[in-house]
Amino acid sequence: MIYQRLLIVLLSFGMGFTHAQKSNIKVNQNRLENRIFELAKFGLQANGETERVAFSDADIEARKWIIETLKKQGLDVSIDFAGNIVALRKGTKKNAKPISFGSHIDRVPNGGNYDGCVGSMAALEVIESLNENNIKTKHPLEVIIFSNEEGGVMGSRAMSGHLGKGALEVVNSTGYSMGEGIVRLGGDTTRLAEVQRKKGDLAAFLELHIEQGAILEKENLDIGIVEGIVGLRWWDVVFTGFANHAGTTPMNARQDALLAAAKFVVAVNEITNSFEGAQVGTVGRIKAEPGAPNVIPGKVVASLEIRDLSSEVIEKVFRAIKKKAEEIAAVSNVAIEFKRLDTTAAPALTEPAIQKEIENSSAELGLTFKYMPSGAGHDAQDMATIAPTGMIFVPSKGGISHSPKEFTSAEDMANGANVLLRTILALDEKLD
Amino acid sequence: MIYQRLLIVLLSFGMGFTHAQKSNIKVNQNRLENRIFELAKFGLQANGETERVAFSDADIEARKWIIETLKKQGLDVSIDFAGNIVALRKGTKKNAKPISFGSHIDRVPNGGNYDGCVGSMAALEVIESLNENNIKTKHPLEVIIFSNEEGGVMGSRAMSGHLGKGALEVVNSTGYSMGEGIVRLGGDTTRLAEVQRKKGDLAAFLELHIEQGAILEKENLDIGIVEGIVGLRWWDVVFTGFANHAGTTPMNARQDALLAAAKFVVAVNEITNSFEGAQVGTVGRIKAEPGAPNVIPGKVVASLEIRDLSSEVIEKVFRAIKKKAEEIAAVSNVAIEFKRLDTTAAPALTEPAIQKEIENSSAELGLTFKYMPSGAGHDAQDMATIAPTGMIFVPSKGGISHSPKEFTSAEDMANGANVLLRTILALDEKLD
Repeated sequence: MIYQRLLIVLLSFGMGFTHAQKSNIKVNQNRLENRIFELAKFGLQANGETERVAFSDADIEARKWIIETLKKQGLDVSIDFAGNIVALRKGTKKNAKPISFGSHIDRVPNGGNYDGCVGSMAALEVIESLNENNIKTKHPLEVIIFSNEEGGVMGSRAMSGHLGKGALEVVNSTGYSMGEGIVRLGGDTTRLAEVQRKKGDLAAFLELHIEQGAILEKENLDIGIVEGIVGLRWWDVVFTGFANHAGTTPMNARQDALLAAAKFVVAVNEITNSFEGAQVGTVGRIKAEPGAPNVIPGKVVASLEIRDLSSEVIEKVFRAIKKKAEEIAAVSNVAIEFKRLDTTAAPALTEPAIQKEIENSSAELGLTFKYMPSGAGHDAQDMATIAPTGMIFVPSKGGISHSPKEFTSAEDMANGANVLLRTILALDEKLD
Repeated sequence: MIYQRLLIVLLSFGMGFTHAQKSNIKVNQNRLENRIFELAKFGLQANGETERVAFSDADIEARKWIIETLKKQGLDVSIDFAGNIVALRKGTKKNAKPISFGSHIDRVPNGGNYDGCVGSMAALEVIESLNENNIKTKHPLEVIIFSNEEGGVMGSRAMSGHLGKGALEVVNSTGYSMGEGIVRLGGDTTRLAEVQRKKGDLAAFLELHIEQGAILEKENLDIGIVEGIVGLRWWDVVFTGFANHAGTTPMNARQDALLAAAKFVVAVNEITNSFEGAQVGTVGRIKAEPGAPNVIPGKVVASLEIRDLSSEVIEKVFRAIKKKAEEIAAVSNVAIEFKRLDTTAAPALTEPAIQKEIENSSAELGLTFKYMPSGAGHDAQDMATIAPTGMIFVPSKGGISHSPKEFTSAEDMANGANVLLRTILALDEKLD
C-alpha cells in the first residue's frame, strides 16, 4: 500500500498526469453548491434574500472570504488598483502567460445567487480540484473576481483599458460613486492605468456564467458555447405630432404621436423578426405627452435597442426600421426623429479555437451543447478585446436572472465547472 | 320728426315690434369684440397673456365687472349659492318661465380669450341690443355666467343637481378647493341644494361657444348647430406580460406588454374608424414598466377613452375593441384587462325644436351651417338634463382651444351672437 501511494505521488509530482488521467478529474459538485450557499450568506436579509451590490459591506465581506479561500489554496492573491481580486497559481513553464478565468460576485439590487457567482465559485472549485489531484499546469492559472460588474463591468473595463474617467462619478444604490467604491474595495483611482493588460498578456480568458435567455433549458441542453457577446445600440425615437382635445378633434384630423409610436413598436418587432438570425430589437421605454386620457398625445419619446453579434446586422436592421418609420411618419402626419445615444457596445467575438475546446470538453464529458450568442453583457466582453476568450453557459431555470428567483441546479453548475476545468487543461496543453 | 319718433316709441312699448321688425335687429359687432378685449384684461400678465382660473383674484374682478355691466342694463343680478352669476330681465307675460342663456368666463391655466368668453359676452350683447332697440320679450330672459366651468362644470352641475359632495374637496391651480372657491365667489356650500333647478323651471337654455375641432373652419361654415354633447367613457387597460432581459430573451420567447399595447393602440384607431359616424377613440396615456431601454416591458397601463352622442355607439365600439384585444392577448401571450373608470359622462342631446330654430335663424341671416356633435363638455351638457337646450358653435381658428392661440374673428362672434339673439326671439314667440 505504501509503495502504491508513493508511486502515485511520484507520478503526479514528478511526471505529471497523462492526458487520460487528467480527463477523469471532476469537480466536487457538493462543495461547489455549498460555496454558492456560503456566498449567499453575505448580504442575507431578514426576508431570506441576499443583497450584495458592489461596494456594500456585504460585497467587501464576501470578497474577504474569497481572498481567504484562495489563499488557503496556496494562491498568490492581490487586489488590483481597480478592485479586482487577482489570484495566481504558479505554472511549471518559464515565462508562460497565464490562463485566466473568473467572473463576479457583486449583484444587482434584488438580484439572485447565481449570476456571476456560479462562474466565481466554479473558478475556486477548479483550483481546489486541481490542487487535491496534485495537478500542475504549464501556464500559470489566474483567478479573477472582477469588481462591480453589475454597475458597468468596471473591473474588466479597467483591465481592458476601457474605463472612462466619467464613469468614476456614477453613484450606485449604495450611495458610493464608482471612484469611492474602488477605494472601498482596496483599489486606487489614481493608478487605474496600471491595471490595464495588453494584448498578449494573457494566454486565454474563460468565463462560466448562467445563460439568461432560457434557451438551454427550453432545448434541454447542458452547455452553451458562447460565440460572442452581442453588441448593442440605443436610440431615442422622438415622435412629434400635435396635442389636441380628444373630444373635439375628429379621427381624420389628428396628428396622434402615440398612434405613430404604436405603429413603430409593432414595426420594430416585425422587422427584427423578418431577418434570419438571433438579432433582437426592443422598445422598452415610452413616454407620451401630455399624457392625459382626454388629450391626443402631441409628443412621444420611445427607446430603441438593437443587439446582435454583428455590427453589420445591427446596422441592417436599423436601416429597415428607419425606412419603415419614414412611411409611418408620412401616413400619420407625425415627424419621427432618431437620436443615437452614447450607450453603444461593440460585439465581442470569442476565439473559435477556444469554442472548439469547449465543444470537445463538453462532448468528452457526455454533455449536450449548442453554439449561441450571449445577449447580455459580461466581463468576458471587455476581456475579449485583449485576450483569446471563451465563454461557457449553463442553464438558468426559466432564463430568469437579476431576480431572487434565479436558480441553476448543482448538476448544471458542476457540468459547467467540469467543462471549464477540462477546457483549461486542454488549453494548457495546446497553447504555448 | 317728433311724431315719427313718438310713433316708434308707441310701437315699441305699447305694441312691441312685429316679427319682421325684430328680424332686423343685429348685435353690435365692435362692441362685442371690445368686450372680449376688455374681459381679457382681467388677469393680464406681463407676457401679454391672460390667466384667469376660477377663484383667482382675476376671476373675481372680472365677475364684478360683468355684474356692473348687467346692472347698468337694468337687470336684476344676483350670485347663487354655487357662485353662478344670474341676471334676470323681466318678461311681459305673467308666470312665464325664463329663457336662459350664457356660458363661463373662467379659463384653464394658459388658456385663451374665447373659450366661454364668447358665449358670455354675446349674452351681454344680446341684452344690450334688445335694450337699445326697446324690445321686450314675453319670457323673462336670464343671463347665467356659470362658475368654474373649467374645473368640472361646477356651476351648471350645481344648477342641475349633479355636483357631488366629493367635488368640493378638489383643489385647482389657485390652491383653493372648490368649497373654498364657492365661498370666495359669494356662494354658500351649505346651501347648494337650493341652487338646483327642476325640470320645467326653464323655458329653454341656450349656449353659444367656440367650436374646438376646426370642423367649421375646414368646411368654411359660419355656424354649428350642436346636436348634443357627446358622452364619454374611460378605461384603464392593463397589459401583463413578463419583464425580461432585452439582450438574452429571443424574439420568439418574449411576453412583451408594450408590443401588445402598441397593437392595441393601432386597433383602437382602426376600429373607431371602421364604423360610420363621428365617434372618437383615444389612447392618451401610457406607462410601461419597468421602463428601461434594455428590459422588455412586463406591464403596460394605457388609457382608453371613447366618445359619441350615443351610448349605444360607445358600447358598440368598445365591444369591438375588446374583442380585438382578446385576439391580441392570445397572439402576444400577454393578458389584457379592462378597468372601467368612474369618469363617465352620459351623452346630452339638445332639443330638436331648438336646433330647428337655430337653423332657421342661421338661414334667415344668410349664414352657412351644419349639424354636429360637441366633442367637448360644456355647461349646456348638464343644463340639457333639466331644460330644453340648444347650443350654437362658431369657428375657432385651427380648432385651437385651451391655448393663448385661441382666436375667433369679430365677424364670426357677431354671427353667433346674432343667431343667439334671433333664436331667443323666435323661441320667445313660439314657447308658452
